[in-house]
Amino acid sequence: MFLPTGVFTATLTPLHADLSVNMDALIRHCSWLLNNGSDGLAILGTTGEANSFSLTERLQMMEGIAQSDLPLHRIMVGTGCCALPDTIALTTRAVRLGYGGVLLLPPFYYKSLTDPGMLAYFDQVIGAVNDDRLRIYLYHIPQMTGVSFSVALVKKLVQRYPGIVVGMKDSSGDFENMKQMCEVPGFQLFAGTEKFLLDVLKIGGVGCISATANATSPLAGKVFASWKAGQAAERLQEDLIAARQAFEGFVFVSALKSYFAHAKENQNWLHVRPPNSVLTSDQLTDLLRRIDQLPVALALHPDI
Amino acid sequence: MFLPTGVFTATLTPLHADLSVNMDALIRHCSWLLNNGSDGLAILGTTGEANSFSLTERLQMMEGIAQSDLPLHRIMVGTGCCALPDTIALTTRAVRLGYGGVLLLPPFYYKSLTDPGMLAYFDQVIGAVNDDRLRIYLYHIPQMTGVSFSVALVKKLVQRYPGIVVGMKDSSGDFENMKQMCEVPGFQLFAGTEKFLLDVLKIGGVGCISATANATSPLAGKVFASWKAGQAAERLQEDLIAARQAFEGFVFVSALKSYFAHAKENQNWLHVRPPNSVLTSDQLTDLLRRIDQLPVALALHPDI
Repeated sequence: MFLPTGVFTATLTPLHADLSVNMDALIRHCSWLLNNGSDGLAILGTTGEANSFSLTERLQMMEGIAQSDLPLHRIMVGTGCCALPDTIALTTRAVRLGYGGVLLLPPFYYKSLTDPGMLAYFDQVIGAVNDDRLRIYLYHIPQMTGVSFSVALVKKLVQRYPGIVVGMKDSSGDFENMKQMCEVPGFQLFAGTEKFLLDVLKIGGVGCISATANATSPLAGKVFASWKAGQAAERLQEDLIAARQAFEGFVFVSALKSYFAHAKENQNWLHVRPPNSVLTSDQLTDLLRRIDQLPVALALHPDI
Repeated sequence: MFLPTGVFTATLTPLHADLSVNMDALIRHCSWLLNNGSDGLAILGTTGEANSFSLTERLQMMEGIAQSDLPLHRIMVGTGCCALPDTIALTTRAVRLGYGGVLLLPPFYYKSLTDPGMLAYFDQVIGAVNDDRLRIYLYHIPQMTGVSFSVALVKKLVQRYPGIVVGMKDSSGDFENMKQMCEVPGFQLFAGTEKFLLDVLKIGGVGCISATANATSPLAGKVFASWKAGQAAERLQEDLIAARQAFEGFVFVSALKSYFAHAKENQNWLHVRPPNSVLTSDQLTDLLRRIDQLPVALALHPDI
């Protein structure tokens, strides 16, 4: 069974002025990332503003990318919603279209969930999709969802669905948690940030899936390539950490879109769907100052 | 302008064994509540499992109730979703069908939102619905959403949309917050729990919208009627608080459905959509013991 590894970018979603998805720009951006350090992409994630799009819009984005020349086996799709039927609809379509995997948020409205309740939810999803090609990556981001995947629950899911529940994006920022997830047999751990890329590779993780890789992908790709070639990657990783940290403290979608709009002198990047918003001018000044001070310049993306 | 006051029940949604909505049972339950202490209902709220239903299912429920004999002007509908187009679609339909108001969760996936981002979201919703009959009640439940309505934001919304943004269900459990919201001119505060019913009425609030009113509605209705008639309601309120507290500490949808299934010897109440689940038998024993010890027996609902 082929399972992806390396640097995955949680891809931004370029929008038109009317806040609809700019599919052409999205495809160009995806293509640039895959040619500049990203082993793969995770579309329709947090930073892709997935949760600000309707089911129909999400299906249209998945179809649009499937009709492009982009290599679907290198692309994961975020398909986890609050409502079971929505998660089933999106996940089914992702598998049928040939995407490499799905990144599943837990149902994130209700809190105080029990492990049996969560298991019942995944039973329903996996049973309804009913396709051997399904590859689920659990999306652990408790600071957004307020819902955690416990190690016990992950073990149960992997035992019950081997080859189906195959990995996790751990965006908790908690390296101890990543360590524990790395130890689950048959389970592939992606750090949710490139800051821990080399660290997770050293403990049995397989890479990172990161929002800030929209800007740092070329650099992150070098770290992964060096590590895979058995070369020392510590120095590159330090630069990568610095680049990541320039964006930390901001909402990533706000900071990344504001930065690209400025760097590319392209106002098209400034469209963000509410409730998210672009940076204030003071915030942008702060971000640009941080980026100017980086030891390595960030690569400039193509126009969208 | 007529605006509702009193006891509103955040109505449970009875389901079939296949987890689809049992419309007939829902209508019977709504009807019983309106004839037994509830001045109004809030359908498709947290305890109604709204966030576990797809957009289509939610629209079907709204249509189904609109086609019944239930008095729509006494019913609010939960229409706040993560995605702007979903919130617009549900809110528009609720207004066109003649519901008395909408209970709007803030967009609840993204965190660290700015007031301008939140304002832009409401501008988009209210602009798109574009109907003078729109009555928005903000649904403040930060323990679920992780997103708060600040007093400053509420004031801005009420000033910008007088007669449209008309009130709030405050489920924070924070009485100080309720006090501050009561002081916003032109704004009607419903406590999110009947525990504070009399207290909020005394400081200028207009009632409560409560999950546990599914069980306590007759008692809560007596408190409101007494208060309205200028009679002392403190003794009744004490009984009401005790009844509410019997359910506290449990997930309300789990506790209420499990309790009704037991009390009515009707297994139909046991269907809950994952990730929510029914109580364990130990939890149910604990709940029933608490209910047995209440000073006033809870009224028995009709069969569903």
